[in-house]
Amino acid sequence: MNTSIKPVCAIVGAGEGLGASLARVFAADGCAVAVLSRTAGGSAEALAAARKANPSGRTLYVQADASKSDSLEAGLGAVASELGAIDILIYNVRGSVAFKPPLESSCDELREILDVEVVGAFAATRAVLPAMLERGHGTILYSSATAALRGSANGLLYATAKFGLRGMAQSVAKAYAAKGVHVAHLRLDCDLDVPIVREMRGASFRKENTAQTDDVAQTYLWVHKQPRSAWSNEVELRPYTETWTI
Amino acid sequence: MNTSIKPVCAIVGAGEGLGASLARVFAADGCAVAVLSRTAGGSAEALAAARKANPSGRTLYVQADASKSDSLEAGLGAVASELGAIDILIYNVRGSVAFKPPLESSCDELREILDVEVVGAFAATRAVLPAMLERGHGTILYSSATAALRGSANGLLYATAKFGLRGMAQSVAKAYAAKGVHVAHLRLDCDLDVPIVREMRGASFRKENTAQTDDVAQTYLWVHKQPRSAWSNEVELRPYTETWTI
Amino acid sequence: MNTSIKPVCAIVGAGEGLGASLARVFAADGCAVAVLSRTAGGSAEALAAARKANPSGRTLYVQADASKSDSLEAGLGAVASELGAIDILIYNVRGSVAFKPPLESSCDELREILDVEVVGAFAATRAVLPAMLERGHGTILYSSATAALRGSANGLLYATAKFGLRGMAQSVAKAYAAKGVHVAHLRLDCDLDVPIVREMRGASFRKENTAQTDDVAQTYLWVHKQPRSAWSNEVELRPYTETWTI
Amino acid sequence: MNTSIKPVCAIVGAGEGLGASLARVFAADGCAVAVLSRTAGGSAEALAAARKANPSGRTLYVQADASKSDSLEAGLGAVASELGAIDILIYNVRGSVAFKPPLESSCDELREILDVEVVGAFAATRAVLPAMLERGHGTILYSSATAALRGSANGLLYATAKFGLRGMAQSVAKAYAAKGVHVAHLRLDCDLDVPIVREMRGASFRKENTAQTDDVAQTYLWVHKQPRSAWSNEVELRPYTETWTI
Repeated sequence: MNTSIKPVCAIVGAGEGLGASLARVFAADGCAVAVLSRTAGGSAEALAAARKANPSGRTLYVQADASKSDSLEAGLGAVASELGAIDILIYNVRGSVAFKPPLESSCDELREILDVEVVGAFAATRAVLPAMLERGHGTILYSSATAALRGSANGLLYATAKFGLRGMAQSVAKAYAAKGVHVAHLRLDCDLDVPIVREMRGASFRKENTAQTDDVAQTYLWVHKQPRSAWSNEVELRPYTETWTI
Repeated sequence: MNTSIKPVCAIVGAGEGLGASLARVFAADGCAVAVLSRTAGGSAEALAAARKANPSGRTLYVQADASKSDSLEAGLGAVASELGAIDILIYNVRGSVAFKPPLESSCDELREILDVEVVGAFAATRAVLPAMLERGHGTILYSSATAALRGSANGLLYATAKFGLRGMAQSVAKAYAAKGVHVAHLRLDCDLDVPIVREMRGASFRKENTAQTDDVAQTYLWVHKQPRSAWSNEVELRPYTETWTI
Repeated sequence: MNTSIKPVCAIVGAGEGLGASLARVFAADGCAVAVLSRTAGGSAEALAAARKANPSGRTLYVQADASKSDSLEAGLGAVASELGAIDILIYNVRGSVAFKPPLESSCDELREILDVEVVGAFAATRAVLPAMLERGHGTILYSSATAALRGSANGLLYATAKFGLRGMAQSVAKAYAAKGVHVAHLRLDCDLDVPIVREMRGASFRKENTAQTDDVAQTYLWVHKQPRSAWSNEVELRPYTETWTI
Repeated sequence: MNTSIKPVCAIVGAGEGLGASLARVFAADGCAVAVLSRTAGGSAEALAAARKANPSGRTLYVQADASKSDSLEAGLGAVASELGAIDILIYNVRGSVAFKPPLESSCDELREILDVEVVGAFAATRAVLPAMLERGHGTILYSSATAALRGSANGLLYATAKFGLRGMAQSVAKAYAAKGVHVAHLRLDCDLDVPIVREMRGASFRKENTAQTDDVAQTYLWVHKQPRSAWSNEVELRPYTETWTI
């Protein structure tokens, strides 16, 4: 890893929840942090979190649309031009996921979620890999979910996409680990304590039943720091209160 | 199940290998068999196999392009109009899969294989489900592979698609099993004895190291016939000679 | 497989539920059926079922205690002496399983269930394998459960045993498949319609939410009959009504 | 967690390889470290490593035989009496594992490995849980292996035991996580750089193809330190060079 200069961490999908925590935690650890999203407003909180965590560190917002491969490639290219070669890519995009029965889901909706969750992750991966391979190191972290292991009656769209993402992540890991690129698929098997979940759960929301995003981000950082003789590829996370099945 | 009239079996992707065996085995069991593929030539062997297995049975070829949702819906609609409501859908499409490192694979190639393997399977499923739900029974069988469980260094395109297919299949199963629709994901964990494998393996080809497609098709038929109090959803198949890992 | 003479099927743990159905189904298919249990009374229903299904077929009861390796070896030896080499071994033993928190379970209870569920299955396997290998064919079927894939807060004893059984079954399969021995681990992911479940569920029992044991036994028979170019090793079964998680 | 006083870490099975690294890493982090093994010689290196890493920290050797539940309970009781309530239990026992075909393995060998790998782990767990539950926190880490997920032709004994251990670990986790006990099953999917592996591999040994035990131990420490809103239960580790299958 480059030691004299600061590692560069690019977070695609850096919103107000986990994205902001990732920005904060990697910035606090000394990284230059770039956040990419469709609109500057979408990344404002993450950008502020990074700046606050490390006022003297470099930060950057780059516009990019995760549903468009070209936009992702261009955006990540801009990060590298501005901050230097990317050491850590975190793909944390989450589109608007609809949970409903298969027959109420359309082929177009399926294509759309595959574009954002899977093809977008692949486009971002393709954009950063050549420089990682050239330098012989790099970390790629994909945010994922229980739905990567298990379909559900109302979750066809999300499960199809997250299963696909997991297959992709494993393949990238197997192709490039021996060349120094550490790839991990982080499976969040729980609700996160983020605004959308608080709203969705309403009066039944209980903080202790959710993962705190700063805590989650600490394990992302740990996975990045694992020495290369002992890497994890699949990492699950859930709060101590969670009733889980696998 | 309809008993006075013959069950209708529609096979999407009925080529010369497993597709022809499926046509033969379901026809021999008394089904009316429809085969769908991009060209009549592509299904000629399957059609002939069905006819030979059951000379008095009804058979039908319908043109359909698995990469186009509309084409699949129209094709399966034509089957139902001609032969009656579809009792068994087998999605057995296999596009031309390229095995190569992730960086030599493009986002467009990923989109294409997702379209054929996943969105196509979903389109076909959507096309047959309403009539199955209305009648309270039906069987949907997806042909899959080891790559649905495991990525590989050169198999990103195929693994991403097959993982996605598996997540989709589980979700459809969970949504509609209680309404009588039996969904199964058949995982062929081996080479099949088909022309393309014989060609690929060349002098090292050994018949006993492959699954015979007629044998494979017998288990598809068995899964269809399982009484509904004891259904399988995920079924793996491999020859006795196979060295396997899961 | 021997064709001129009838296959010999030995069922260890042939009680009134699934055991009786297995005896019935394999007898009806033409097998000579031996049932083994600790007491003749424990197998009376299974024996009667086999006789009724095939009045001209041979049947046999042999006393054996699944918690004692020597007793199982002696019992299966007696079956082979009386009926001929065993073609099909079904290990269907179920001890009295206690569901309770780990701290209320003792090390001795854990040893006991491992003895019955795992070491017993291995002892039975060892007893039949040499003749199967000598003749180049044979089928070994282990009755298992969801607990083979997933621990639970009150199911430590049962899960530890069923996980172990699954690891053992996979190892036997990998060691001897190429020599013609078909090994399968049948994972019953549901309640069965058996007296103990009816009693346990009481007024909430609903037949359609359980697997009928005759239906389950049909898939055991199918697995035995699979042609050797297309074998399944792990087979899951559940009723169409089941809400499942994997 | 107790903050004013040092956490107490008990390592059952603290030999010269991973055991010594675990002793070193947890001592370096400030823990009082107790090592348990059958003979004082067996733990001498681990004990020295802990002392060197933290010369002012407390260390302790306690004799215990992992194949005897009573011995483990007494040994861990002695640790608690001497150092205080145990905060971290690491079960890292490895018996002498024989790899050979199922028919060359005996029922007694299977019972022996189940006693050491599974019943011993359970006995150790039972010994430390009550105090952990009373204080509302604790960490239990089980050293495991690829064999916990996959049987193999020559690995029946080891796989049966490690599968069982995994089922046990999941059950303990599900029973007591909500009460503050963090349980993890660490799956080492690789060779470790330890004397026995160097000897076994001979001239073909390559350090970069193995996991360094100090690196592995760092992830054990991380799992212990994970904040309780984001815990991992199953953690896999392998070197960047490893060719892996799941």
